[in-house]
Amino acid sequence: MSQLASAPLESLPAESLVGLCDTLASQARIAATELASVRSDAKNRWLIAAADALVAATESLLAANAVDVASATANGLSAASIDRLTFTPGRIQKAAEGLRQIASLPDPVGRIRDGQVRPNGLQVQKIGVPLGVILFIYESRPNVTLDAAGLCVKSGNAVILRGGSEAFHSNTALHRLLAGLLPQFGLPEHAVQLVPTQDRAAVGHLLRMGDRIDLAIPRGGESLIRRVAAEATMPVLKHYDGICHVYVDAAADLEMAERIIINAKCQRPGVCNAAETVLIHRDIAATFLPRLGTALTGQGVEIRGCEKTRQFIPNATIVTEKDFSTEHLALILSMSVVSDLTEAIRHIRRFGSKHTDAIITRDLPTAQRFVQEVDSAAVVVNASTRFNDGFELGLGAEIGISTDKFHARGPCGLEELTSYKYVITGMGQIRE
Amino acid sequence: MSQLASAPLESLPAESLVGLCDTLASQARIAATELASVRSDAKNRWLIAAADALVAATESLLAANAVDVASATANGLSAASIDRLTFTPGRIQKAAEGLRQIASLPDPVGRIRDGQVRPNGLQVQKIGVPLGVILFIYESRPNVTLDAAGLCVKSGNAVILRGGSEAFHSNTALHRLLAGLLPQFGLPEHAVQLVPTQDRAAVGHLLRMGDRIDLAIPRGGESLIRRVAAEATMPVLKHYDGICHVYVDAAADLEMAERIIINAKCQRPGVCNAAETVLIHRDIAATFLPRLGTALTGQGVEIRGCEKTRQFIPNATIVTEKDFSTEHLALILSMSVVSDLTEAIRHIRRFGSKHTDAIITRDLPTAQRFVQEVDSAAVVVNASTRFNDGFELGLGAEIGISTDKFHARGPCGLEELTSYKYVITGMGQIRE
Repeated sequence: MSQLASAPLESLPAESLVGLCDTLASQARIAATELASVRSDAKNRWLIAAADALVAATESLLAANAVDVASATANGLSAASIDRLTFTPGRIQKAAEGLRQIASLPDPVGRIRDGQVRPNGLQVQKIGVPLGVILFIYESRPNVTLDAAGLCVKSGNAVILRGGSEAFHSNTALHRLLAGLLPQFGLPEHAVQLVPTQDRAAVGHLLRMGDRIDLAIPRGGESLIRRVAAEATMPVLKHYDGICHVYVDAAADLEMAERIIINAKCQRPGVCNAAETVLIHRDIAATFLPRLGTALTGQGVEIRGCEKTRQFIPNATIVTEKDFSTEHLALILSMSVVSDLTEAIRHIRRFGSKHTDAIITRDLPTAQRFVQEVDSAAVVVNASTRFNDGFELGLGAEIGISTDKFHARGPCGLEELTSYKYVITGMGQIRE
Repeated sequence: MSQLASAPLESLPAESLVGLCDTLASQARIAATELASVRSDAKNRWLIAAADALVAATESLLAANAVDVASATANGLSAASIDRLTFTPGRIQKAAEGLRQIASLPDPVGRIRDGQVRPNGLQVQKIGVPLGVILFIYESRPNVTLDAAGLCVKSGNAVILRGGSEAFHSNTALHRLLAGLLPQFGLPEHAVQLVPTQDRAAVGHLLRMGDRIDLAIPRGGESLIRRVAAEATMPVLKHYDGICHVYVDAAADLEMAERIIINAKCQRPGVCNAAETVLIHRDIAATFLPRLGTALTGQGVEIRGCEKTRQFIPNATIVTEKDFSTEHLALILSMSVVSDLTEAIRHIRRFGSKHTDAIITRDLPTAQRFVQEVDSAAVVVNASTRFNDGFELGLGAEIGISTDKFHARGPCGLEELTSYKYVITGMGQIRE
């Protein structure tokens, strides 16, 4: 069915594509204005109804997904990509659970972020307001469609979804389900829209509509994100890559260091908060590297190390500057022995991506200096880099992680999808 | 003396100008890294010393300022512009007071904005950090140089100042004084830099240095701000104009409405939070407009009104759509009679600039709807629009007012010049 709906759009002439994008943006703008005044319980009821409907529609969702999986297999996508793309009843259940969880989170719209009474009696409040219209551009996993739609609507924002072409039929089915339920809860029907064509030029058109779209959020490979950042006429919430470090200090608990490195590297190597580089203080190189090398090799990790690393881990290949600058997203780990904390910080400043960097140490002043001088979205002491995540940090859910300092940094959840206005209430005060 | 210093720079060839801007940006970047770790008391001692030095240097500052005032007079600048440009001992004293006030404000760097302990025992803190390097581009009043330098350094940011050419000698003298005092308090000497040439191309070069400059703040006329927004490769904190409205509801206290309108329009007509348009509910037009017309005319205000307005204020000329879209920054007021709150909100949405909009009413549901549906940085109930100001809202001081929703909105003080990082402290936790 979604093929029937999308087929004619694929052959749209350029003007029609601009017109289509224009319509999406204008409809979203109007929906955003309405959505800003919608009460929390309407949004929550929609989220819960969507969760129920998802589970009820399992069979038809699996059928739509099967079309995508078949194309992906025919197009020779990697096994990992196909796995990420594939729906199962269990995954649909889990996605539904995610929507119910968003329903249970506090609504950031209308929240009094700060307030005071001024000496002249004026009441000043900072009140949470939605950002407006969000353009969300993402790749592969279709459950991201649900998270994004849920987070945007709950935070009062209209969203234009642009998923990867490999998940087009799955996303179309999910969008139809989500959007179809909006009107019965009094929510504007264009609060959640999906770009109904796989034409790549649509993204370029939408990125030029900064007059109606308030924010673009790209999530996917670095080239996608660089393209969005270069072309967008609206602010962009993003991170390019996650080159995350674990620095093992001379005063580290080595058992803890080993456990954390294995977790940071191996628990899910394909995500942005996985470790890419381990730095080791030279005083512990001889004691720690052999056991770490054995543990990592046992987990199937390919080690690339500096000369000194290779003295103690003979199976390590030589590391290059390119390795230090690369987010491998795979079981490959760069390692370097450093002479002290200063050299470790210098390495992180030079090669890091200001995403997540950890230190393992028992020495308080060392931990303090690391926290002070490493300028990353998350700085971690004696824990895994994998904790830089919206759920783990208590935000409930996240739409992405930002490494920018402007607006929001780190995981971005409901609160980060809002702005605020000042509401000033007086009894006739004028300025002297 | 500053003429001697600046004269050769005026004739810089293009490559030298790029090189100069490059040096400014690189020096600022290094200074910003150092400044991020400086303790509050060093910054405060510098602010207080600068305040003392300002007052002590009154005579030489007046001499430098006299050069600017003489050129401005020769170039035929308006009396108002020359007045804004002119130093007096009293104004220097007041500017020094401003620096002392910034010293007394809490330091946003290192402030724990939020914190919690997660169920697994991880301690999660959101800690204030500086944005980095700020490029501040502004016009006329030289005391803005002091405010900007004080606010940036106190919030841990290095600043590159680019003042208006009409204030070049005054700004050069002020900058020399401020920057000269930095090293004795352990602050990096390039924390405060002034672009040492009046060549307009320098701004273009600096705006392309998004790799080292984190934020541009333009303050001045709309054309300056539009140029900066168009050319900047870094985020921009700004508002284009302040088309601020006062809506007088049918249920208004008319004495209060008159007092507030006179204050909002006349107390300082040349600033962004002054009222440009008054909207009047038709039910009170006959009672309220004649007295309001008399009061405004008595203050020298030129009234431009719709047909209905002119029935009750005969000396009003006819208002145009262009008037409704113009920030006059002068004693000119646009007026329109509206049939209800809906029409007032529609007018504000169409012509307003999302800066500051006020309602005068005794009716609570009307006030609530106005606050909910008007999407401006500040929405005011029964008080003057002039209160949308950093000092009046309790921020202490402001570097500008933002009408964007991304990052900060409304007046921007110390807190708005910072971002945050997550600091995650564990005892060896790994992700399950």
